[in-house]
Amino acid sequence: MKDWLESVYSDGTEDFVSSPSPKLRETVTVRLRMYADAPVKHVLLRSLHNGVEQLEEARPAGTRQGLRYYEAPLRITEPRIAYQFYLVCEDKVYFYTQQGVTGYIPDAGHDFVLLADYVQPSWVKEAVFYQIFPERFCNGDPSNDVQPGEYTQDGWPTVKMDWRDRPLPYSKGHCLDFFGGDLEGIRQKLPYLKELGVTALYLNPIFAAPSVHKYDCVDYFHVDPHFGGDKALAALSEAVHAQGMKLILDISINHTGTEHKWFNRDGTFFPLSQGAYHNPDAAERAYYFFDGGRYHGWLGHANMPTLNYSSPALRDAVYRAEDSVLKKWLKPPYSIDGWRFDVADVFGRNDELQLSHELWPEIRRSIRQVDPQAYILAEDWGDCSEYLQGSEWDSPMNYFGCGRVIRQFLGLKDLFLERHPLLRQVDCPLTAEDAEKRVTQYLSRLPYALQQNQFNLFDSHDVSRLHNYPQLGPQALRAAVIFQFMLPGAASIYYGDEAAIGGWTGDNEGCRFPMPWGEDFTQTEAYRVHRTMARAKAEHRALSHGGMKFLYAKGQVLALARFTAGEAFVGVLSVSGRPEEVCIPFGVIGAEGPQGGTDLFGGRLDYTPLDENHGILKLEPKQASFFPCRMKK
Amino acid sequence: MKDWLESVYSDGTEDFVSSPSPKLRETVTVRLRMYADAPVKHVLLRSLHNGVEQLEEARPAGTRQGLRYYEAPLRITEPRIAYQFYLVCEDKVYFYTQQGVTGYIPDAGHDFVLLADYVQPSWVKEAVFYQIFPERFCNGDPSNDVQPGEYTQDGWPTVKMDWRDRPLPYSKGHCLDFFGGDLEGIRQKLPYLKELGVTALYLNPIFAAPSVHKYDCVDYFHVDPHFGGDKALAALSEAVHAQGMKLILDISINHTGTEHKWFNRDGTFFPLSQGAYHNPDAAERAYYFFDGGRYHGWLGHANMPTLNYSSPALRDAVYRAEDSVLKKWLKPPYSIDGWRFDVADVFGRNDELQLSHELWPEIRRSIRQVDPQAYILAEDWGDCSEYLQGSEWDSPMNYFGCGRVIRQFLGLKDLFLERHPLLRQVDCPLTAEDAEKRVTQYLSRLPYALQQNQFNLFDSHDVSRLHNYPQLGPQALRAAVIFQFMLPGAASIYYGDEAAIGGWTGDNEGCRFPMPWGEDFTQTEAYRVHRTMARAKAEHRALSHGGMKFLYAKGQVLALARFTAGEAFVGVLSVSGRPEEVCIPFGVIGAEGPQGGTDLFGGRLDYTPLDENHGILKLEPKQASFFPCRMKK
Repeated sequence: MKDWLESVYSDGTEDFVSSPSPKLRETVTVRLRMYADAPVKHVLLRSLHNGVEQLEEARPAGTRQGLRYYEAPLRITEPRIAYQFYLVCEDKVYFYTQQGVTGYIPDAGHDFVLLADYVQPSWVKEAVFYQIFPERFCNGDPSNDVQPGEYTQDGWPTVKMDWRDRPLPYSKGHCLDFFGGDLEGIRQKLPYLKELGVTALYLNPIFAAPSVHKYDCVDYFHVDPHFGGDKALAALSEAVHAQGMKLILDISINHTGTEHKWFNRDGTFFPLSQGAYHNPDAAERAYYFFDGGRYHGWLGHANMPTLNYSSPALRDAVYRAEDSVLKKWLKPPYSIDGWRFDVADVFGRNDELQLSHELWPEIRRSIRQVDPQAYILAEDWGDCSEYLQGSEWDSPMNYFGCGRVIRQFLGLKDLFLERHPLLRQVDCPLTAEDAEKRVTQYLSRLPYALQQNQFNLFDSHDVSRLHNYPQLGPQALRAAVIFQFMLPGAASIYYGDEAAIGGWTGDNEGCRFPMPWGEDFTQTEAYRVHRTMARAKAEHRALSHGGMKFLYAKGQVLALARFTAGEAFVGVLSVSGRPEEVCIPFGVIGAEGPQGGTDLFGGRLDYTPLDENHGILKLEPKQASFFPCRMKK
Repeated sequence: MKDWLESVYSDGTEDFVSSPSPKLRETVTVRLRMYADAPVKHVLLRSLHNGVEQLEEARPAGTRQGLRYYEAPLRITEPRIAYQFYLVCEDKVYFYTQQGVTGYIPDAGHDFVLLADYVQPSWVKEAVFYQIFPERFCNGDPSNDVQPGEYTQDGWPTVKMDWRDRPLPYSKGHCLDFFGGDLEGIRQKLPYLKELGVTALYLNPIFAAPSVHKYDCVDYFHVDPHFGGDKALAALSEAVHAQGMKLILDISINHTGTEHKWFNRDGTFFPLSQGAYHNPDAAERAYYFFDGGRYHGWLGHANMPTLNYSSPALRDAVYRAEDSVLKKWLKPPYSIDGWRFDVADVFGRNDELQLSHELWPEIRRSIRQVDPQAYILAEDWGDCSEYLQGSEWDSPMNYFGCGRVIRQFLGLKDLFLERHPLLRQVDCPLTAEDAEKRVTQYLSRLPYALQQNQFNLFDSHDVSRLHNYPQLGPQALRAAVIFQFMLPGAASIYYGDEAAIGGWTGDNEGCRFPMPWGEDFTQTEAYRVHRTMARAKAEHRALSHGGMKFLYAKGQVLALARFTAGEAFVGVLSVSGRPEEVCIPFGVIGAEGPQGGTDLFGGRLDYTPLDENHGILKLEPKQASFFPCRMKK
């Protein structure tokens, strides 16, 4: 590749789009940059308007830090404007989209895209989320604890977690599913979270439900009494917002349990005269897929009756009415800042009845009526870019473009591949080249505003914690955290990762251990890594509002940068067992090299400049570094 | 790349999908093949159902012609089923989609896709279209000719083609726009077209209009009298169908001219008491974007008032009512077999009012109610895969994935790039690698059934004829025709290309010369190339129903194959000025090499086998060959 091609860059940040969230009919200025000595004679901005191609010559707009800028006006004539850049050289024309430079006119799939009148939840790109599995975080009010026997005997088929045969580091005696975590406990720990650098909480389900995990909700309209009830949520919300933090809740609206008030098969919590199962004339009957006495269960599970959104009344109850489930909790005194939707990937999808792309825009509109900045986070582990075009989700749980990628690059099995007996047998780490392609292929199909909404994670209540895999060394967690924090969007810390909390791998129970509050873990490497990255994100605009670019991806070494015109940070992740030497093109981000001889964790940086744009980093085995750059004049 | 990876193949043809147009809830068998000695231990079929990933192990299904097959059942649970293949080796898992093999889990953008209950216009993939610009094809009935002065003087601002300053090879005296071509002339030439190998006609507009090109239609409901009126169309249709041929017509429903009956600004053809312009109360007023006395013209042109499909009455008039424009001509006695929609790329798109994805599905349903096999061909020169997912168009005029690619590979400027003064200056032929990527990137985003609908062309009434570019040698036309006929879908011959008809390059008038019926061109290379390819397509199922694969793409040489399990054809296109030696992996199509020492045009093939799957072809400068293969046992 010709050297200068590596420097061609634009994105949807304010450094490259004068108004990243433009209004319809606004004219914005779009910019592109490249090495100052690139042999480019003209730059054209190519955009489509009502299906017609327009080519506008971009004018040179100065050279800064060794990079020449071009800019062109772009009129936002319709709700979605897609554009590409054409680079005219003496003997060739190159084309540049979000997927990079090609020698042929690329298809429209990776165009830069601006959305008119799109309201971005602008706080998300600055956010450091902290995911809490409430029952296991902190017991702030023992008076609301589950009592022994409360759920175990009479009639309730409780989903018990049986840890009896496991080597438990924590225990409250025999067969103790419940550890007493509640909302008051979270409230009490807000100063701790603030100190760690957390700016937003994401709580796993808290609505009334008998199990520990509370995905078996029996009433969407009430917080579980063992978590403190509705009042505790109001109190938590007030405290969270007083700290300048945000709060989002988790909910499954794809299906209910059989004991949900609306269904009520066994009468465990409500009189049998209520609910759809025993009362064909009940209003809730239409909420489900009944066929005589039979009903449709999600994935065929009889204990998870699927909700049928052909029903207007159900749409009203869940999201349309002013007192609907989703709106109730967005309004005071709860005032949550967004929803995380469980199993959103399957929502509204029932064979011939595919309603998802009808429902999500409606849900979005309902939510945004109450709070224009509310975050719409959806559970999907795969490529779901079809939902990420502006009118549906803000972000998935970004396993596909973050967690699955970094885990596999570090040497773990891919989270999906390991589910299958044949795929599980193959040790198949991702090369750096493939990791870059995977991330780029994913992000480049999204409007940039949606890239900035991404919820980047590698651990959660649904996957084994990375640091508990014995085959990974101590650097792996640091590498994963660096990677997670460097992608556009929010980073999400799964509670306890900062404490290198114990557990086991292989099933979900092993990643839901109670927080080890009795230990002082604030001096550990795990804590330091998280706090350092969270603080850096809060302090440096490049890490929240800046662009992102891969600088190196070969074999077992990956380097990426976040940057504005004013500052730049680079992360270098080696998974090689040997020392490596890599040539990093610092010039493409307007930098000369690392700012000092050590990185933000105090690790040594062995750097030798090569030419005005490149330098050599010598890496220790498995080195994972993160450092600010010295910018060019 | 590991050799065996080149052989991994599947597609949507009946060789690889037991039922390429399945019904909802049907279970089909999906197949994949690769070299028999590929080090693959397991093959998994990965599909999504209601958003949930399913992995199904494919079972070995025998080895034929050196290729091992795998197959797995796939249940069509919903209207659109997407799938990928996972190839499990000892130490790595590979992933295969329509875009090829990757080492990482690819995004969903290039998945194989099956559409339930999708009705493919199945004749299209077997079709050899012949595009006719009617006024210039054949004057079968001089009694309906335009009379001198008929359109030139009194009141009508005729769109005159001024050829006076051009070196015209043909002439009927002074300033002769009209050459008398009509539908009777086409009817008389059907035996000629049949002999050439044509199976379907596509006529440029024939509805009442004063100009030669008739895009300035004044009445969608009548055939122009100078073309013979409605009766001539009925007669032509009867004759076409009697020959077993098909007929499609061209129409612009995005806008009308100002003199269309519905608008009638100047009263040129209809009394001023009719039409929207002078009559605010006219029913047709709502068909346009009026704002007081002002109206919206397409691309701002006052002479092309845009139709406003917010109007239910307009939708009825154009396509919904039983006596609507589109339905009238689909019904007897006209019984046309499809529509070509002019400027479909802009249709229904008016800034904030973006109706295209609402209108096209409605139009499709209306058309298909009358004729389930009607072809919906849309003018779009760019990447328009968003319209090609099954519910809107069947195909664009495939410039993007065919005409623009082959023209640029042969050394012409890209049809869009040459429109711009800065881009026009750069000589920028497409490399073979980029040509392959461009075609693959385009096709791989379509369900296979839509790939088979493609309308492949390189010349038309809108572009300069390839053979008239002086810088191209005689082999260029042959190369373009081979390429066009080898892509999945139909090939379209632009009238006169088979006669190497004269003209000039640079504007549309130069590509609309009258047919040189006075010459005997049936012995020319141009005629022979077209007839050979058309006949081969009719005689060999591989060229209509078979798969397609690029076998070689490097520098200035491109090779591609069409094949079924029973036969295979290869086209090799060199644009190099020097002899070239290329290594072709005939094994991936189950072949040993060329069937003989010459190709279908009698050209010599210099072939040397290398190993069981590969051989060397020595190519003359600019060689363009097309030949059947000798299949393995």
